[in-house]
Amino acid sequence: MMLTNGMTWFVAGALALGACSSGTTPQMSAGGGAGLQELMKARNLSEGDVQAALKTYTPTGKHDEYYMFASGGHGGQIIVIGVPSMRILKYIGVFVPEPWQGYGFDNQTKEVLAGGKRHGKDLTWADTHHPALSETAGDYDGQFLFIGDKANARMAVIDLADFTTKQIVTSHLIESDHGAAFVTPNTEYIIEPTQYAAPLGGVYADVKEYKEKYRGAAIFWKFDRDKGRIDEDKSFAIELPPYVQDLSDAGKLVSDGWAFCNSLNTELVYGGNLEGNPPMESGWSQNDMDFLHVMNWKKAAELVAAGKSKTIAGMKVLPLEVAAAEGVLFFVPEPKSPHGVDITPDGESIVIGGKLDTHATVYSFNKMKALIDAQKFEGKDAYGVPILAFKDAIHGQVDLGLGPLHTQFDDKGFAYTSLFIESATAKWSVKELKVVEKIASSYNIGHLSTAEGDTVSPDGKYLVMMNKWALDRFAPVGPLLPQNFQLVDLSTSPMQLLYDMPIPLGEPHYAQMIKADKLKPHAIYKPAGTDPITGEKAEHAVEGGKERIETRGDGVHVYMSAIRSHFTPDIVRVKEGDTVHLHITNQEQADDATHGFALDSYNINLSLEPGEHSDVTFVADRAGVFPMYCTEFCSALHLEMAGYFLVEPKSAAPAPEPAPAPEPAPTPEPAPTPEPAPNP
Amino acid sequence: MMLTNGMTWFVAGALALGACSSGTTPQMSAGGGAGLQELMKARNLSEGDVQAALKTYTPTGKHDEYYMFASGGHGGQIIVIGVPSMRILKYIGVFVPEPWQGYGFDNQTKEVLAGGKRHGKDLTWADTHHPALSETAGDYDGQFLFIGDKANARMAVIDLADFTTKQIVTSHLIESDHGAAFVTPNTEYIIEPTQYAAPLGGVYADVKEYKEKYRGAAIFWKFDRDKGRIDEDKSFAIELPPYVQDLSDAGKLVSDGWAFCNSLNTELVYGGNLEGNPPMESGWSQNDMDFLHVMNWKKAAELVAAGKSKTIAGMKVLPLEVAAAEGVLFFVPEPKSPHGVDITPDGESIVIGGKLDTHATVYSFNKMKALIDAQKFEGKDAYGVPILAFKDAIHGQVDLGLGPLHTQFDDKGFAYTSLFIESATAKWSVKELKVVEKIASSYNIGHLSTAEGDTVSPDGKYLVMMNKWALDRFAPVGPLLPQNFQLVDLSTSPMQLLYDMPIPLGEPHYAQMIKADKLKPHAIYKPAGTDPITGEKAEHAVEGGKERIETRGDGVHVYMSAIRSHFTPDIVRVKEGDTVHLHITNQEQADDATHGFALDSYNINLSLEPGEHSDVTFVADRAGVFPMYCTEFCSALHLEMAGYFLVEPKSAAPAPEPAPAPEPAPTPEPAPTPEPAPNP
Repeated sequence: MMLTNGMTWFVAGALALGACSSGTTPQMSAGGGAGLQELMKARNLSEGDVQAALKTYTPTGKHDEYYMFASGGHGGQIIVIGVPSMRILKYIGVFVPEPWQGYGFDNQTKEVLAGGKRHGKDLTWADTHHPALSETAGDYDGQFLFIGDKANARMAVIDLADFTTKQIVTSHLIESDHGAAFVTPNTEYIIEPTQYAAPLGGVYADVKEYKEKYRGAAIFWKFDRDKGRIDEDKSFAIELPPYVQDLSDAGKLVSDGWAFCNSLNTELVYGGNLEGNPPMESGWSQNDMDFLHVMNWKKAAELVAAGKSKTIAGMKVLPLEVAAAEGVLFFVPEPKSPHGVDITPDGESIVIGGKLDTHATVYSFNKMKALIDAQKFEGKDAYGVPILAFKDAIHGQVDLGLGPLHTQFDDKGFAYTSLFIESATAKWSVKELKVVEKIASSYNIGHLSTAEGDTVSPDGKYLVMMNKWALDRFAPVGPLLPQNFQLVDLSTSPMQLLYDMPIPLGEPHYAQMIKADKLKPHAIYKPAGTDPITGEKAEHAVEGGKERIETRGDGVHVYMSAIRSHFTPDIVRVKEGDTVHLHITNQEQADDATHGFALDSYNINLSLEPGEHSDVTFVADRAGVFPMYCTEFCSALHLEMAGYFLVEPKSAAPAPEPAPAPEPAPTPEPAPTPEPAPNP
Repeated sequence: MMLTNGMTWFVAGALALGACSSGTTPQMSAGGGAGLQELMKARNLSEGDVQAALKTYTPTGKHDEYYMFASGGHGGQIIVIGVPSMRILKYIGVFVPEPWQGYGFDNQTKEVLAGGKRHGKDLTWADTHHPALSETAGDYDGQFLFIGDKANARMAVIDLADFTTKQIVTSHLIESDHGAAFVTPNTEYIIEPTQYAAPLGGVYADVKEYKEKYRGAAIFWKFDRDKGRIDEDKSFAIELPPYVQDLSDAGKLVSDGWAFCNSLNTELVYGGNLEGNPPMESGWSQNDMDFLHVMNWKKAAELVAAGKSKTIAGMKVLPLEVAAAEGVLFFVPEPKSPHGVDITPDGESIVIGGKLDTHATVYSFNKMKALIDAQKFEGKDAYGVPILAFKDAIHGQVDLGLGPLHTQFDDKGFAYTSLFIESATAKWSVKELKVVEKIASSYNIGHLSTAEGDTVSPDGKYLVMMNKWALDRFAPVGPLLPQNFQLVDLSTSPMQLLYDMPIPLGEPHYAQMIKADKLKPHAIYKPAGTDPITGEKAEHAVEGGKERIETRGDGVHVYMSAIRSHFTPDIVRVKEGDTVHLHITNQEQADDATHGFALDSYNINLSLEPGEHSDVTFVADRAGVFPMYCTEFCSALHLEMAGYFLVEPKSAAPAPEPAPAPEPAPTPEPAPTPEPAPNP
């Protein structure tokens, strides 16, 4: 085991303790505290385990040094993890309703989710892949977080001031994405390239017309930092060949203004394994080389501004011909079926994981730029895009092992590349193209993440290996197993495995790790009555003492306040069929004084953080008596924070005489024989 | 700080190590491993922290000793936690669709969720409160898990063979529950008493008729262990006065056959604070005593079998008059606004947390039974229920501190009671009614859970304090904070705080902790083609080589297999408006070889565990080209596990000429000015 290498001093020291202090054996206290050796023995811990424990254990009240934001995969959320303790601090609801946050249950958040409808259809899941922290001058600034939905080609904006999703956008231009989200160095744009090609704009064409009618595209969503929102009108896309674009990354420093994207299917095959064609897995792997896409997004933006785009499904699209002709799009061959594309902190090198190759290939931006400036191309592809010569564009290759995928960087010039098939991470020198060491993963590592690893100034220090399979690592939980995040200490050589963390929900793909002190989230909404989505005082904010119920043309408006430990009003009477508008303000201004609001059988459930205001509109379509209550254990009298929502039946004129009160008369139906304690 | 009491030996030992070994200072390896003191200093760890770290750290590949099953509160799930590492191993979808599990997306699990509809309405959230592990002879047997939904009065059955929710039931008899789920000692019944009173059967009556027409009830759901399902036809309920029943527990050993339930509102008030009434929080707290409900469920079952029940909303209900007259229901006064009711392992003592009292009250089952047998009552309540005298029914009281709520037990005769207002847990002797010690909680502890703490043979060893507020304990994550589970070592005296665990999703209420080796979940579904809900081979299971697409009267049936790394067929052609039946079998029989199935924009998302079969029926109501793919990183070529779902437009006779292929012609619309890098 690599992790115990070079650590024999520790156990030696520990043993020495026992030996040396035998004359003065530490007295066990009456409390029965256990000594180091005793604990190691009792729990079968090695000296490496002890080190790892002490490097990760974070005592009560002490905070983690980093936040890691990981995608939740097909759970559709963001997972917030503290590093080095590897404790999950929060799930942020993004594309999927999240009951405990009230997300998707009030009018405000329903509207956020509605932004993600596709062709008018509500989607209640997503496949979140690559979170991207907002950047200023190429460094994470801790303000915003973006994430794409691979399955349905959507993009979300999360505000880190309150860890809340503020916006979801989608373009019907494309059907799926993968290399999303990646941001440009000042968060001018959020990049979302397609994964699976399709006719642009959601129209139909048989797959046999793949080459002619199917296309990829790279959407550049314009981010308005002042508003904290994507500006759809100022966003644009570059049309791409149907090569199945994969991961992407934005240039930085020397390569600022450029973006890079892999592709997988220069073969232009499309499956059809029940129709006599090979499946995609072999079809896509026939060519030795695919095409790295090199895109000049600044130039593209200028051309779009100059009117060179056309509009498809509401999106301004720079046509492939224009992109090819006007110096926006270039190709460079890359070893077959590449996966990751990652730019070094200085912006000069672009590292590609070969997947079916054993190498990582390091491209030189300066070399590529020189070739482009000199118009030195080795030809054009079938769609007219200029191709740079592989050998002239690269710094070199390094043989890493089986299945290289993704690469992250530290502060000392080293790169860390995940090796899926080998189940390991290789540490190697970008400059010298030499492997320094490897560390095993358990098992099948996909992405990996280093501290501030995508910035112009990575921290080194920690690496998290995001393993796809866990197998035997954790106590079994049925056929559907967790993923396994493994924390690695990069400050030692060899690297040391510190922690195995099960991911209990979803399959995270990528994560970014940011220094915790860069985030300054607020603890309450000020003033009381704030709409958390707009950040402004809500139109229907309720002041204490001004609670009321008003019947207006559009229904019954209930202006309700919540404060420990009651709602006012706590009885609401409406008539069957009434449209009801609940306007509820949590009047609390104390940290953590969250109230819930639950309404039985009506599928209404809010989470009202301190100062938050929510509105809910619904039709009281069923008569009856419906308890409402606070779902948070907000005080010792939390159970008493309740009330009744009374829906009088339509037919009931003065007072209904509803179902009979229970009477002791026995029912005639055959009663089943009770079976007391039939089990062994 | 209590946790470092009696541990000074440890740091002394550590310092002694440094002193004694100064002549032979352990050599740092080239790898740069850090020594104990160095690490303690670098991370500011106390000797207590080191002990805690070593008592909880669980190295790669080593499994936790206990599973803790916690409710997910208004997240609607179950949280599976490993103890002592406090890592979350899994979220189990219960009442809420869980995309990453495909739960609520295929026909099988949609049907499970449909069992939880209320009055025909889909509910997409729940407030899960009290999980209950199945028991055999009063011990957890590791087979099943049950949990109630407080908000909508529902009950779920989870099979621990595959950690999957198999059944949800609800009765329209009641509107909400709280003291659910609790099981009888051989899991004959699962108990679900109401929380908020309402007219039985979902009918309407104004709340002013509270005393006359509102009622509580305790449902006893009959569990058929062989089928692994609740048998609704063999279930029954006992009608109760509208006293707001709270927590419940089942008797065991000497008290087997009996159940106990608190109540809160003998005042019979119902709020109305905008109508001149006091809010419930003060209204419910006027009386000094409420009523502990003592129920003879075996007798009740006999009476129901004998035809003494009447049927309301499909549920057999033993009327209050019958229950009172026939020796099924008795009351004993209990200090105001009680919360927890917990039976000691021997079944003899019933411990009540006073909430607004500083005492826990210990009732003696034998004393109560003797009073009942002797028909010695001090009167009857307004509904005719016999009342036992408080002083004759109790073993005694113990002054614990502010806000006693819930109690758990160890193997040495001690009880552990949470003190919400005091933010602490009191350890006390049940026999001697004496407090031994206290440990602080951070902050506002609600429930607590000890190892096998609800059984006839608790383990002691570990206690988890389930704190409602976290405040400053973790790195901040916006206004909505996590809860804080604190692990405590019960094997030492004083008790030692070991770990702070943030709960990232939902507000768990209760948890049960079971020895890990009692669970034997399976890792795959055998044979391939198994329906995970029935456990049987699915009707439409697909064999490798027999994949096909058949058009029948009821639509297009797609018999598809999934195996690394392709779906067969990988192209599906249908016509707009077709009803499509996807039948997909994961052919894998290797552990962890799960495949996903995503279909763009159609809200279809499956998780196919090894051997699992799923069916999905939907209408292809939108023409276009929709990529489908595996959402799991199942192999190095996982991106290639994809295909196309092609929906030909209705109008298209031979071949459609859809939207125009993008052309370089610029659009005439006013192009916005691009804003390159506007941010600092």
